Amino acid sequence: MCDNKAIQIVDATLRDGGLVNDFYFDDALVKALYETNLRTGVNYMEFGYKASKRMFDPEKNGKWKYCNDEDVRAIVGENRTNLKIAVMADVGRCDFHEDIRPKNESPIDMIRVATYLDTIPGAVEMIEDAAGKGYEVSCNLMAISKAKESELRDALMTLAKTPASVLYVVDSFGALYPDHAKRLVTTFLEVASQYGKKVGMHAHNNMQLAFSNTMLAHELGATWLDGTYDSMGRGAGNCAMELLLGYLEKQGFSQYHMEQALPFIDQYMENLKKHGVVWGYDIQYLLTGLLNQHPRAAIRYTKEGRSDHGLFFNEIKNPTA
Amino acid sequence: MCDNKAIQIVDATLRDGGLVNDFYFDDALVKALYETNLRTGVNYMEFGYKASKRMFDPEKNGKWKYCNDEDVRAIVGENRTNLKIAVMADVGRCDFHEDIRPKNESPIDMIRVATYLDTIPGAVEMIEDAAGKGYEVSCNLMAISKAKESELRDALMTLAKTPASVLYVVDSFGALYPDHAKRLVTTFLEVASQYGKKVGMHAHNNMQLAFSNTMLAHELGATWLDGTYDSMGRGAGNCAMELLLGYLEKQGFSQYHMEQALPFIDQYMENLKKHGVVWGYDIQYLLTGLLNQHPRAAIRYTKEGRSDHGLFFNEIKNPTA
Repeated sequence: MCDNKAIQIVDATLRDGGLVNDFYFDDALVKALYETNLRTGVNYMEFGYKASKRMFDPEKNGKWKYCNDEDVRAIVGENRTNLKIAVMADVGRCDFHEDIRPKNESPIDMIRVATYLDTIPGAVEMIEDAAGKGYEVSCNLMAISKAKESELRDALMTLAKTPASVLYVVDSFGALYPDHAKRLVTTFLEVASQYGKKVGMHAHNNMQLAFSNTMLAHELGATWLDGTYDSMGRGAGNCAMELLLGYLEKQGFSQYHMEQALPFIDQYMENLKKHGVVWGYDIQYLLTGLLNQHPRAAIRYTKEGRSDHGLFFNEIKNPTA
Repeated sequence: MCDNKAIQIVDATLRDGGLVNDFYFDDALVKALYETNLRTGVNYMEFGYKASKRMFDPEKNGKWKYCNDEDVRAIVGENRTNLKIAVMADVGRCDFHEDIRPKNESPIDMIRVATYLDTIPGAVEMIEDAAGKGYEVSCNLMAISKAKESELRDALMTLAKTPASVLYVVDSFGALYPDHAKRLVTTFLEVASQYGKKVGMHAHNNMQLAFSNTMLAHELGATWLDGTYDSMGRGAGNCAMELLLGYLEKQGFSQYHMEQALPFIDQYMENLKKHGVVWGYDIQYLLTGLLNQHPRAAIRYTKEGRSDHGLFFNEIKNPTA
């Protein structure tokens, strides 16, 4: 468990957290987060998306929805550090031919291609494009709790033949119980290991299982682990980075330093919450997770300030009623 | 996993939750909780403690700190239902000779004797007293994350020879990672199974592992599982009953009905929170859990409204500094 070189911790705070505040983060926060990641020993910092400006109005989203090279560079300079820079690119929502420049012109190190199981050909095209431009590439399989076994194996076999070096289990709905998480990670590992790929875990906390499923994935052999500070992320949020780092330190991964996360959380995450940015576990997220549904109904419930979980559960169980 | 008769779910909301509000619950809440447990299919409802009135001033605590038979009876009448009534009695803090009346005079079914590893002789005396009076008895081993293996085995061997029918792993500090929880539950099961005893799990949520550790204990063979509605309990709270019931229903335990918990939570638990009763996961609890400490420093931090986790962590790491 203590092969220190194998493990890669990815900070997804800006990217998954940006889904909560439309990517409007102050530069001071982003710089402090970058500095924090340098101190905690996190391996990759995901800044946000490379989203299409034609599809997503730049007037309505902060700059980390797009992650222009110059905006990243304004934070990290030439980034002569051990911390690598990642961005996410969604299949069908990214003008990758224009917006992803060759690696030697960019401060970005890794493109994380996010796809559903029914858009694998599009993912393959984007993976090949990014790898051809010189980037490290991962493929992040979203809404994986809905996957059928045969369909999943086909997708993994296709992706295993691409230049993507990491294949990610993405529990978008926070719907994975440990036995289900174990089956999926095991399937990913079976295919990935045949092709020299690594496996990653990106969890959501709808059933308070984001951290435990991430530990479980690690124990099974997944080496790329996502966290976000103070769990910031869509809906119920993600695996808390501070939980993950505390655990890894105890396991002997002495390159990580949980304690260094605390000042950033106290200063910046608490401030976001004070200004009305809302995320984290609540019962409405448990209910969508339990039904293996996208959290959008629970996010709406939260925004509307409702307190009638019984009625809500009936609504989402019988969406046409 | 679906031996429906084997599993026993214990609602510890009033007892562990009472540690948060000094046991001042309205009768309306207690009655609604009782009715809710009848509808959710929970097996045991723990009302509170049998605390010594000499040691704990009844002017400063609500009545569920003492659980007089007549107070319990005012809620449950003759309790001609399938829901059984439990109370907790702490070694050294209970005048059990006087305050625990014979079972045939009481609406209470089960006495849960709570002990530390260094007070086992006192626990044995109380177990024998309660069993002799006609009660079902469990023994709940608190602060178990501190236990040394040999000391634990000795204690379990002693307790296994008493009339207690259930031996409980109590993670008072919320300090158990899955591998540690697994070792403990396995040790408990080894001894308990030799003597026809059952094993239980009572978890705290300091590291967001209360639910996953409870599932893990169940998977290993523990059949007595504690939860509290909306996680209400000391510090970071407990395994959320709604998470536990939702999981068990999905596993095929059709006697449980998570949905029936929702109106109670919306009406009563939200109301407690609105009135300033505070519990649940926060980073200060992660920090005491990580250090395998009693949560009292984190509870104080919470009450003081502090937001300097970095300084706090230094304080609790170096308590004499």
